[in-house]
Amino acid sequence: MNSSGFPDGEFEARCERAQIAMHEAKLDALFFTTEAEILYFAGFRTAFWLSPTRPWFLILPASGKPIAVIPAIGADLMAGTWIDDIRTWGSPHENDDGISLLASVLKNYSNIGMLKGRESGLRMPLADYETLLGKLLGTNFHNASSLVQSLRIVKSDAEIEKTTAICQIASASFANANQLFHVGQPLDQVFKAFKIELLKNGAEEVPYLVGGAGQGGYRDVISPPDKTPIQSGDILMLDTGATLEGYYCDFDRNFAFGSASDEALKTYDILYRATDAAINAARPGIKCSELCVIMQDIISQNSGDVGRLGHGLGIQLTEHPSLVSFDQTVMQAGMVMTIEPSMSMSDGLMMVHEENIVIMDGEASLLSERAPCELPIL
Amino acid sequence: MNSSGFPDGEFEARCERAQIAMHEAKLDALFFTTEAEILYFAGFRTAFWLSPTRPWFLILPASGKPIAVIPAIGADLMAGTWIDDIRTWGSPHENDDGISLLASVLKNYSNIGMLKGRESGLRMPLADYETLLGKLLGTNFHNASSLVQSLRIVKSDAEIEKTTAICQIASASFANANQLFHVGQPLDQVFKAFKIELLKNGAEEVPYLVGGAGQGGYRDVISPPDKTPIQSGDILMLDTGATLEGYYCDFDRNFAFGSASDEALKTYDILYRATDAAINAARPGIKCSELCVIMQDIISQNSGDVGRLGHGLGIQLTEHPSLVSFDQTVMQAGMVMTIEPSMSMSDGLMMVHEENIVIMDGEASLLSERAPCELPIL
Repeated sequence: MNSSGFPDGEFEARCERAQIAMHEAKLDALFFTTEAEILYFAGFRTAFWLSPTRPWFLILPASGKPIAVIPAIGADLMAGTWIDDIRTWGSPHENDDGISLLASVLKNYSNIGMLKGRESGLRMPLADYETLLGKLLGTNFHNASSLVQSLRIVKSDAEIEKTTAICQIASASFANANQLFHVGQPLDQVFKAFKIELLKNGAEEVPYLVGGAGQGGYRDVISPPDKTPIQSGDILMLDTGATLEGYYCDFDRNFAFGSASDEALKTYDILYRATDAAINAARPGIKCSELCVIMQDIISQNSGDVGRLGHGLGIQLTEHPSLVSFDQTVMQAGMVMTIEPSMSMSDGLMMVHEENIVIMDGEASLLSERAPCELPIL
Repeated sequence: MNSSGFPDGEFEARCERAQIAMHEAKLDALFFTTEAEILYFAGFRTAFWLSPTRPWFLILPASGKPIAVIPAIGADLMAGTWIDDIRTWGSPHENDDGISLLASVLKNYSNIGMLKGRESGLRMPLADYETLLGKLLGTNFHNASSLVQSLRIVKSDAEIEKTTAICQIASASFANANQLFHVGQPLDQVFKAFKIELLKNGAEEVPYLVGGAGQGGYRDVISPPDKTPIQSGDILMLDTGATLEGYYCDFDRNFAFGSASDEALKTYDILYRATDAAINAARPGIKCSELCVIMQDIISQNSGDVGRLGHGLGIQLTEHPSLVSFDQTVMQAGMVMTIEPSMSMSDGLMMVHEENIVIMDGEASLLSERAPCELPIL
């Protein structure tokens, strides 16, 4: 039972790359508490992360396989991964929810890297973390966020295959828009119809579906849907992060109903051209900040509240890096990115446009089927 | 635009209860970084939490409404809640992702409570948290996990209404098992069919669906499905956490295909009786630990790897308290609980059984439709 869908060699390669970087950074171990990293290095995949009750720990030493320190309820599932050294405790525990067991492993290392930087969090109780530090007074805990991001940013062929598959599923689902969406349909039913379509077309989960609809445009791109019916003259935007074996797509589509205003048509056209320009420029060697400038030159607006124009994509809906003016990350072959320009319109309305690509030697390859070059009218 | 589905009075009441408890605990403010608490006190609901890029902060002072310190991308959605004081910054930010803004609010308080205890995590970069502490050297950060849990543990009528509705949707979906599931169907298609059924019957999301199937029983209750077809003689278990406006159900059902072994029938019967006994005993005044003893006396096994026999339920799939021997939490009217005994069987197989109830003055009320008293055979 291996829940990751990858052969063991995938994880061996990931850990070897990490261990080379750890050697350079003089780290004896990496210590993780989070779903994405425990999936990435161990191949441990479960919806059980939704329960906040139990902490889960993974330690990657400077050589050899990772060590799992986990609640006993996960022992069988972890035994199906490539990990051999699995140490368990009965969780929840009255007064020691894995901390002594974790300390007994971590005490073997002097310089430990953990995620402390941008986009990270600590998935264990802060009080338990403080207790752990108290048990390991001689140990240095370094910020290894950059190190881990530099590994995860470049996807293997096997990873790109999964992202490609889920992008194709979402593209096929959007292609059925004229059967799925209609005037008079309440927005929450639009969302539901699209979720079911994604599942029917092969998505495993639809963890993320946001969007909006309104006369001539929408105001907000992170809201859950209400029951307002679609009206003629509305523009509908749906932005989905569906998954296949843990890998996300993340792109949106816009649809007008009945007719579209000149402003909407023009905004769509500008965003389309900005996206084209970024896709064309997204080649090894160019920086995130430079891709931003290319899009902003066409948009002729500052990036506003959304704050960025794209991001990495993989086992999380959004990953490092960000297409933002201060991000100097250089594109490399194997990076999977969203290109996501947005614009403000009159009356507080806005429009977003998004595609998913993989950076290749030469031209980038589209993973999402390119949106129509004119705003589609249903 | 209020994404919570509650009138403002619901949040006013929650904050008033919190402020009474804060007064007793001599806390000047509560400080939150997590989705559940920002939903609970502000009514801010969005799938955007899936993106780890941006931190979100909420501060509840000793009097008055909460203060939101959030990325500008969330300003519109937050403005639709009952919160008035919304302070935003453009995120992601090059070198100060909200920390100065957050510190400018928190510096007004000397004793701040935050979640540091069981079931909690820190949803902001640890390095930023360390920077924050450095900016607020005179401030005391206390562990307010127990305080917050004591509030959230008792649900309002409006909350119970939402949980009731999603439990009914899941019950109606399980009731269609004989149309949905059949011998020869790969397990991943069983999961997909059930997800679609839940959505069709009114669930908004299906964030959690786990289960297993195998000859005479299953081995593991947290795995994603593989493609193994259901065979005659299999027992299938599905455990779902579907949601409606942010409120979860969490219960499972077992189905045998073709026939069931004596051991499976007997195990099911024991678990059914243990669940009945716990439901019957679950009244105001009884402790979690005592409910455990009642179930364990019938099961005559220790609780094994699963570690507990039920838990709280609400805006998270699992909430405080736990039905475990060391949890002395006393049942109160308004608590929503899962009753979830499990047993080991021969050959490493296991069985789980789960219902959702709300504690009432007098007898508890079932939220899930009670499972059949004998293992159903499809």
